[in-house]
Amino acid sequence: MLRKLTAEFIGTFWLVFVGSGSGILAAHFPQIGIGIVGIAFSAGIAVMSMIYAIGHVSGGHMNPGVSLGLAVAGKFPAAHVLPYAIAQVAGGIAAAAVIYLIASGKAGFVAGGFGANGYGDLSPGGYSLTAGFVTETVLMVLFLFVILGSIHERAPAGFAPISIGLSLTAINLVSIPITNTSLNPARSTGLALFAETAALPQLWLFWLAPMLGAIIGAVLWRVVCEDA
Amino acid sequence: MLRKLTAEFIGTFWLVFVGSGSGILAAHFPQIGIGIVGIAFSAGIAVMSMIYAIGHVSGGHMNPGVSLGLAVAGKFPAAHVLPYAIAQVAGGIAAAAVIYLIASGKAGFVAGGFGANGYGDLSPGGYSLTAGFVTETVLMVLFLFVILGSIHERAPAGFAPISIGLSLTAINLVSIPITNTSLNPARSTGLALFAETAALPQLWLFWLAPMLGAIIGAVLWRVVCEDA
Amino acid sequence: MLRKLTAEFIGTFWLVFVGSGSGILAAHFPQIGIGIVGIAFSAGIAVMSMIYAIGHVSGGHMNPGVSLGLAVAGKFPAAHVLPYAIAQVAGGIAAAAVIYLIASGKAGFVAGGFGANGYGDLSPGGYSLTAGFVTETVLMVLFLFVILGSIHERAPAGFAPISIGLSLTAINLVSIPITNTSLNPARSTGLALFAETAALPQLWLFWLAPMLGAIIGAVLWRVVCEDA
Amino acid sequence: MLRKLTAEFIGTFWLVFVGSGSGILAAHFPQIGIGIVGIAFSAGIAVMSMIYAIGHVSGGHMNPGVSLGLAVAGKFPAAHVLPYAIAQVAGGIAAAAVIYLIASGKAGFVAGGFGANGYGDLSPGGYSLTAGFVTETVLMVLFLFVILGSIHERAPAGFAPISIGLSLTAINLVSIPITNTSLNPARSTGLALFAETAALPQLWLFWLAPMLGAIIGAVLWRVVCEDA
Repeated sequence: MLRKLTAEFIGTFWLVFVGSGSGILAAHFPQIGIGIVGIAFSAGIAVMSMIYAIGHVSGGHMNPGVSLGLAVAGKFPAAHVLPYAIAQVAGGIAAAAVIYLIASGKAGFVAGGFGANGYGDLSPGGYSLTAGFVTETVLMVLFLFVILGSIHERAPAGFAPISIGLSLTAINLVSIPITNTSLNPARSTGLALFAETAALPQLWLFWLAPMLGAIIGAVLWRVVCEDA
Repeated sequence: MLRKLTAEFIGTFWLVFVGSGSGILAAHFPQIGIGIVGIAFSAGIAVMSMIYAIGHVSGGHMNPGVSLGLAVAGKFPAAHVLPYAIAQVAGGIAAAAVIYLIASGKAGFVAGGFGANGYGDLSPGGYSLTAGFVTETVLMVLFLFVILGSIHERAPAGFAPISIGLSLTAINLVSIPITNTSLNPARSTGLALFAETAALPQLWLFWLAPMLGAIIGAVLWRVVCEDA
Repeated sequence: MLRKLTAEFIGTFWLVFVGSGSGILAAHFPQIGIGIVGIAFSAGIAVMSMIYAIGHVSGGHMNPGVSLGLAVAGKFPAAHVLPYAIAQVAGGIAAAAVIYLIASGKAGFVAGGFGANGYGDLSPGGYSLTAGFVTETVLMVLFLFVILGSIHERAPAGFAPISIGLSLTAINLVSIPITNTSLNPARSTGLALFAETAALPQLWLFWLAPMLGAIIGAVLWRVVCEDA
Repeated sequence: MLRKLTAEFIGTFWLVFVGSGSGILAAHFPQIGIGIVGIAFSAGIAVMSMIYAIGHVSGGHMNPGVSLGLAVAGKFPAAHVLPYAIAQVAGGIAAAAVIYLIASGKAGFVAGGFGANGYGDLSPGGYSLTAGFVTETVLMVLFLFVILGSIHERAPAGFAPISIGLSLTAINLVSIPITNTSLNPARSTGLALFAETAALPQLWLFWLAPMLGAIIGAVLWRVVCEDA
């Protein structure tokens, strides 16, 4: 179990360091900045590659919502959700700390929003709490649906990390303007701790909506597809 | 059958929500907007991931034109085309409604073209009806050709969703300036219902051209490749 | 044989229509244009998807240089190179004609360079004949090396189209500023016929350099890797 | 052994020519330049495609750090690390020379930084030596972790080149602003030789940090995952 938790810690560190670090360090770089497209691919590729790397060790969840959804779908022991979530959040916090260390190595650095998730005043495009909640919940429902379908024994073997990882890319492409895209409480928590904005008081949404969406997605998949 | 139709509803919802939502919500975001490249990848990835997820349930068509073309090619029961098309259009409308709900959560929102397909005055680049019709028809011929070749038993197993999904990315990259890229009547119908422009009177083309192209593509593939 | 040639005609049509059409129609679209990144992906994805689709029919070369290189490497009958090349060039010309038809459906259209390849005054970045010749030759050597290695029986089965197709994306990313990236005489010929610039008098380079590079690449691979 | 070393020479040539050449030749092209996103994909795709092509010949390392890390992990003979490194550095230098030849084929060319890696004044975004060292080390730890996990016998067969190659894309997306992304002493050495800036005196970091990170990553993976 310790090995699994360490793998999840490292996996979530990788996801947040690369996926969120790219947004903080490279998205607005003058002229050649990576923009939302670059953030979306770094996040999706990070998930894809780490599922290939640690999928056979811990499953490669890197996300408390994914662990919960898999438990609801009967693919993961419910008793492991909490320890996994703790390891994942720890990995997210550690990654945010290292991003902070690197980002502060530039003269005139200010943390600002630090890539944290938000709604209302803290939404990148100024979208409301309702818009943010709907976005995070609906996309998490669909994300779990894609995950459970892609890992099903009747789906082509070996391709699930591509399907799952790049789905996260597509999700980022549509939702960064709304909430800066969470769907992952571990990522949201790590970044919110370093943001100078009021990201922490908004953190509840980025736990509640993805967890809710994960449960709905898992139930929906079981009803529609499991025995189909 | 109900499970298959529900899977197609959810799949088409995902495709339109992510693929078209990205265009509406993120394409023109200041400085870091995703542009046509981002729309193209979100649409292609959405198709790829959902074929992995529901291919073993319903086939993962998410497009009345694809269902029709597969029927013409003898790969899908003709009697199922209509119920599939209804489920797909319903999924497209539902996704457009949720995009509308989210998009309206921003002060000063106007639906405008709402990502709908168009020609002439409603073409993103001002291309004529003829240009739009040729583009949608020719690309759908080629899309069906790629689909039928990639799912053939002599093609490498498991890779068809990558080939098919990313083909849609390439198709978007060339044709968004012409018609905003349909090739999918379910997507066109869903978005046209929410557009404030005259998208509905132009909707006929985005049913006729893709359906015509799908039939030609399926016949062409049977003649050239089926028994090759 | 007629089926193989028809498949190569359609495959090359697809490659030029999507890969070059994206450059002509979408690269400079205001604000959300796809740029070189978008052209590079449309070309690479077109090759990848069509190899999956027709690889089991004709091999999916879509390029006289590739057919020649495979013949030099002993993977393709030398007597088929010429008929394949004719079918490929015909496909390239047909695609360029349809792009022209679509592009002219916009008020004020001028063909201009029409995405044709060039050096010196016709190089996108103003690079010399020598720079263009070196670029096209060296990249074709490497492209054949990647092709031959990826289709080798000891390479993982089924992945060659991804490796080959996306290599073309990488090649475009580095060489569009130099020559607008040919490596494919069929593509160069089709576009040059519709360009209003002096692309035709420069066409010799885009036959000579890729063909030369293909021969060198095939020989290099046989010496270094074939029996390794 | 000579064949393996030649394969590594060609592989590293390809990686540096395409991955770094794209940055030098295409990143800042007016209006349609590829930016960091394009550099990141050309580097990642180059690695992916060449592992498919020469993985069965030499392993497809193309990087002294990767060779060292694999040796530490017990996956590669320690005695081969030095000859591999020499072949890789030679490939990197040769590629940089050809890029220089092509780049100088444009009127008014100045080598400038020539895409070399740097910190402090030579960091693209002005990041400190500490930020650069941490970035290169931490990312190399994670890169080795992904490599070793993806090539493990319990990971899906055949997908490792995608996982490894695209990880390099994600790594570039986050770290180009900091050090211009090395993680590969062969690349750093080749480019530094042609830079007009003080890249050579900074070269030590781009040997030390990736080599250190490779050792840590290999040890970490053995402890956490090898027998899990």
